[in-house]
Amino acid sequence: MNKIEHIGIAVADLQKASTLYEQLLGTSCYKTERVESENVDTAFFKTGENKIELLASTADDSAIAKFIAKKGEGIHHIAFDVDDIYAEMERLKAEGFVLLNEEPKKGADNKLICFVHPKTTNGVLIELCQEIK
Amino acid sequence: MNKIEHIGIAVADLQKASTLYEQLLGTSCYKTERVESENVDTAFFKTGENKIELLASTADDSAIAKFIAKKGEGIHHIAFDVDDIYAEMERLKAEGFVLLNEEPKKGADNKLICFVHPKTTNGVLIELCQEIK
Repeated sequence: MNKIEHIGIAVADLQKASTLYEQLLGTSCYKTERVESENVDTAFFKTGENKIELLASTADDSAIAKFIAKKGEGIHHIAFDVDDIYAEMERLKAEGFVLLNEEPKKGADNKLICFVHPKTTNGVLIELCQEIK
Repeated sequence: MNKIEHIGIAVADLQKASTLYEQLLGTSCYKTERVESENVDTAFFKTGENKIELLASTADDSAIAKFIAKKGEGIHHIAFDVDDIYAEMERLKAEGFVLLNEEPKKGADNKLICFVHPKTTNGVLIELCQEIK
């Protein structure tokens, strides 16, 4: 785990939330991206060495739609930058953490990603992400 | 807002959670601190330029106890480092954000802190924190 890469926040309306986070952080959204595989639209903000990723659902049955239906808008996950996602997945499995996907998948922002089940991390959804070279 | 200073995670058992986050992050807890005014015990971990702060309640009616009773363990807040907490509070109020305390209060880790109401930030509890010189 090198550092926190980004914090993902589930929002209902991406446009409204982007305007609000621009005001809050005092910085502009520098990128938006649709991630078809996850059924989300995303908006990114830089803050220090981290990013804030706003996530809005594009389908009723997406993970983000289900999260908001159950818990309301709010912090969805913390993503950690790793050098070798395969090695980190193996390390965490050996430590007893439960992974939500057995193989890394393609996420937003040119990353290979894997989620760790929040039941093994005090209710926190952890994402591992590795930049695709 | 200079950068994310720390992420606060509400946990039921600080000792168990500390052991788990040491395994997850691959780094040791470098500080524990009781914050009497908030009725919490805290444990800190460094990751990149940020910290992870685990928070366990020391009283049944603390904010953390109520949070866990309502939502379960999980991410409680994101704290941003600011140079001048008074100026940042004024700026945010002028932008329409609602503050949870009108005056900064003393938080963990030698900080002046102020919280922003999550109803004005898409369900995310935001903390402003300024190092006390």
